[in-house]
Amino acid sequence: MTDCNTTIIPPAIILDHPQLGENIGAAARVMHNFGLLDLRLVAPRDPWPNKAANAMAAGALNIIEQAVIYPTMAEACADLQYLFVTSARPRDMQKKVYTPDQSKEKITTLHQQNSRYGFIFGPERTGVDNEVIALADAIISINVNPEYKSLNLAQTVAILCYEWSQLELLENTHKNADHVIAPKAMQLGLFEHLEEELDKRNFYSVYEKKGRIIRNLRTMLTRAELTEQEIKTLRGIIRCLCEHEPR
Amino acid sequence: MTDCNTTIIPPAIILDHPQLGENIGAAARVMHNFGLLDLRLVAPRDPWPNKAANAMAAGALNIIEQAVIYPTMAEACADLQYLFVTSARPRDMQKKVYTPDQSKEKITTLHQQNSRYGFIFGPERTGVDNEVIALADAIISINVNPEYKSLNLAQTVAILCYEWSQLELLENTHKNADHVIAPKAMQLGLFEHLEEELDKRNFYSVYEKKGRIIRNLRTMLTRAELTEQEIKTLRGIIRCLCEHEPR
Repeated sequence: MTDCNTTIIPPAIILDHPQLGENIGAAARVMHNFGLLDLRLVAPRDPWPNKAANAMAAGALNIIEQAVIYPTMAEACADLQYLFVTSARPRDMQKKVYTPDQSKEKITTLHQQNSRYGFIFGPERTGVDNEVIALADAIISINVNPEYKSLNLAQTVAILCYEWSQLELLENTHKNADHVIAPKAMQLGLFEHLEEELDKRNFYSVYEKKGRIIRNLRTMLTRAELTEQEIKTLRGIIRCLCEHEPR
Repeated sequence: MTDCNTTIIPPAIILDHPQLGENIGAAARVMHNFGLLDLRLVAPRDPWPNKAANAMAAGALNIIEQAVIYPTMAEACADLQYLFVTSARPRDMQKKVYTPDQSKEKITTLHQQNSRYGFIFGPERTGVDNEVIALADAIISINVNPEYKSLNLAQTVAILCYEWSQLELLENTHKNADHVIAPKAMQLGLFEHLEEELDKRNFYSVYEKKGRIIRNLRTMLTRAELTEQEIKTLRGIIRCLCEHEPR
């Protein structure tokens, strides 16, 4: 998992509103099996610490003890630069969709850029909602039996951790290594800035569709993998368009 | 799960002396997720049927109901032609050892020969014993963190079923076919619209290097691979920000 130049930092595993402590524990266990350390929980249903999670974690209690709880997804991913979300393919969003195997090339590039990234897993019953998908950069979709698609949360984590461990990180690709994607907190700052200015101007005139417009906007802007400098430029543009009268 | 010449018969999943009903149920669930059907249990610890197994199987009760119990491993694998056993690499036995990925070539050959084969998984606490390893044709060994090797039984089944499903999924992999990038003329229309509005507001005098700003803007917007609809949305946003006073 290392090459001569860089230290490989494994991805964060982010469980969004997890319901069952058993699944959190099993996720921690398999993370440890494959050398992942950074477990983040967004608003777990049950109080934390969680006995069922501890019991299932077996020898991976260190992962459970170091896990961090966040009230919102935005806070959980603020320091990360790229997010994969595990989900079925969405119908109405233009988002990159990888199989776990196909994601490896992108992950190799992220490592070359020293970018921090995470895998998001949705709640057991419902999966991730569209707002979380909009925030992510790409979807990882595991091809399953169309007659029984419902994968267990911890087993999905197992498959992704396993596939991650299979990466040949030494492999060289010809990607641009100095493209550093801005942290999610900066990306969110841009989205909210733009959305607010639009709101002030009644852009969301058909009010019901506001959520969808915002999701689509975030989706297309996320796809651009903006750098910090680019986000500064875009925010400058928004200010310019909003604050200055044309000559 | 088929190709033009043969019907692919998925492998049998053979749990050797399984202890926890939860693991049997979770194994059944993930088998169904990946299109495997044939679950065999060698002398499970608890009576069968098993409530905990049923609960964990969720929508895969059919697998549980069709599972067959055998008193010995020899009987459980009597009709099969080739056996893989999941285990760490044994010290004192000359046995072929594959990673899950390396096993694919052998499995492809087995399918071409219409051979029936199975994957054996040992008991939770101890793993398979040497007699069972001796009976198997090859070992499948998952590379794990040397500091924490103990994989959960059902997660090991998940990884093997997942890897098996990858064998023929290359053709089934859905392409991101409905993302159609807008023609360059439309992209340019967007760029020029934005650049003109910025020019009217002296954006470039502030930042000096107009040519470079335009290049950078076009670079980041091009990277988003915008669709026609997204370009229409972005042009609507530019008009909104330019023409409307905030409320």
